[in-house]
Amino acid sequence: MRLTPRDTRFFDLLTTAAGNLVTGAGLLTELISVPIAEREKVAQLMHDTEHLGDDATQEIMLALNTSFITPFDRQDIQLLASRLDDVLDDMDEAADLAVLYRIDEFPPGVEKMVELLARAAALTAEAMPGMRKVTELSAFWEEVNAIEDEADGVYRRLLAHLFNDGWAGGDPLKVMKAKEIVDRLESAADAFEHVADVVQTIAVKES
Amino acid sequence: MRLTPRDTRFFDLLTTAAGNLVTGAGLLTELISVPIAEREKVAQLMHDTEHLGDDATQEIMLALNTSFITPFDRQDIQLLASRLDDVLDDMDEAADLAVLYRIDEFPPGVEKMVELLARAAALTAEAMPGMRKVTELSAFWEEVNAIEDEADGVYRRLLAHLFNDGWAGGDPLKVMKAKEIVDRLESAADAFEHVADVVQTIAVKES
Amino acid sequence: MRLTPRDTRFFDLLTTAAGNLVTGAGLLTELISVPIAEREKVAQLMHDTEHLGDDATQEIMLALNTSFITPFDRQDIQLLASRLDDVLDDMDEAADLAVLYRIDEFPPGVEKMVELLARAAALTAEAMPGMRKVTELSAFWEEVNAIEDEADGVYRRLLAHLFNDGWAGGDPLKVMKAKEIVDRLESAADAFEHVADVVQTIAVKES
Repeated sequence: MRLTPRDTRFFDLLTTAAGNLVTGAGLLTELISVPIAEREKVAQLMHDTEHLGDDATQEIMLALNTSFITPFDRQDIQLLASRLDDVLDDMDEAADLAVLYRIDEFPPGVEKMVELLARAAALTAEAMPGMRKVTELSAFWEEVNAIEDEADGVYRRLLAHLFNDGWAGGDPLKVMKAKEIVDRLESAADAFEHVADVVQTIAVKES
Repeated sequence: MRLTPRDTRFFDLLTTAAGNLVTGAGLLTELISVPIAEREKVAQLMHDTEHLGDDATQEIMLALNTSFITPFDRQDIQLLASRLDDVLDDMDEAADLAVLYRIDEFPPGVEKMVELLARAAALTAEAMPGMRKVTELSAFWEEVNAIEDEADGVYRRLLAHLFNDGWAGGDPLKVMKAKEIVDRLESAADAFEHVADVVQTIAVKES
Repeated sequence: MRLTPRDTRFFDLLTTAAGNLVTGAGLLTELISVPIAEREKVAQLMHDTEHLGDDATQEIMLALNTSFITPFDRQDIQLLASRLDDVLDDMDEAADLAVLYRIDEFPPGVEKMVELLARAAALTAEAMPGMRKVTELSAFWEEVNAIEDEADGVYRRLLAHLFNDGWAGGDPLKVMKAKEIVDRLESAADAFEHVADVVQTIAVKES
């Protein structure tokens, strides 16, 4: 049963949830390139995506309560769904704050962070259907960890720039606002690593 | 055994722990309404409550080590106790910082956040004795999630006000201090969601 | 088997991982006492140590995948390895930010926080070989919790000093930078508590 689970519904639902992360990363890319006046529209689309994510999570929870047989431990599926949701929450918060704070410009390095998030989202979306053979997914954990590592380096250099190089004329409130947004992007990169950790946990159990 | 556990000690201890959260939320309500000179006294009561919370947690851990039969997985009870404790830690930190920072006034929106925390605390205190029939608690998870969602919205509007509207005359250090306190309240709302997540995990296992 | 596990490899690997935390705490002690010009060299040593930590974690993950018998649940060993790694990540971030931000001086209280981290690291390194008799480690959880409590108190007084007493001439950007570094130290203290929580979880299962 473990190797050929017949109930493919969970893989489909997890794949949907991961697909929302690809959409979210795409919207972040848009958010940082459109004119300020159009940011609110993009943030609204992100919010819609986040609601789709909530729906997918709830559908997974419901399916867990009504399925007799699940491919893995129920709690692991629940945890994985919840970790996927965390990524989208961070993306949504970043977009929301960018609008709320009405910041003039994004600090340099933000494009790179968003690009890394898009790569992690693509890897995650590829991995979800592959959960059927989770023990073959060890490269996923390593790749997502490498991305998180790189995002962390970009994040720290970005902070140094914000604080040391007179960004925004050294205006403390503007620096704080930019930092808040960038913190959410860094948190999203961490959240991808937590997704990979759960996948790794399941792989360890199945091996 | 699962449906009619005879060892009610765990439910009593969890109910006590959740009761401390109701007390904590009540003290936060007091903290933000009393004159500055009386804040320290309220923070001290909060600290006493936090110690009661620690005692309840330790009693649960001890009971876990000495009980042969537990109504649920030992680790789930341990996790639930630890998550309840996290809420009180955040409340205690918020009260402590309010005193340490000697801030003149709380930013608008704080009353609403505290009110939401009080509602989440009341729901949690109601849910704990109901853990006996945990599978009937699905509404709890949804209600706490809805409160966390609302708290999150209030939190973000509050941040926007702090940073954009010249609050405290735009004094960066005052803005930072207010943000630190509000962050703890937001963290407490998150912590309630984590409590609900553990309850949900137990319900999934029992179903 | 549980009481006399013959596969001592996991204990050795966990002991190595905990030993890296002792090294990390030692490097933090050095970092805050050397002249600014030498900080980068110390941060580089910390980074090397963090890589050793990553290697130890990966070795543990690999050993989990190839060992038929493990002394405890595989997931608990995995979680413990990952929590040990979290501590070193926080230490590494603190050292990295101290260099990146080029701060002139560390605020008072930092020495005390680093000293508490060194104590927690020593306790953890002592506890790991003792995991063989994990049920005898209950004092470990209490001691690490007491250290975290003390670190928390030092942290809050330090924040009050940063924000209220005109530290760095009340320069908001300097206050923010110092706070970022101190936040990582506080996070490392929390991370030690999370290590102790996993040890406690294993002890509960084994009892």
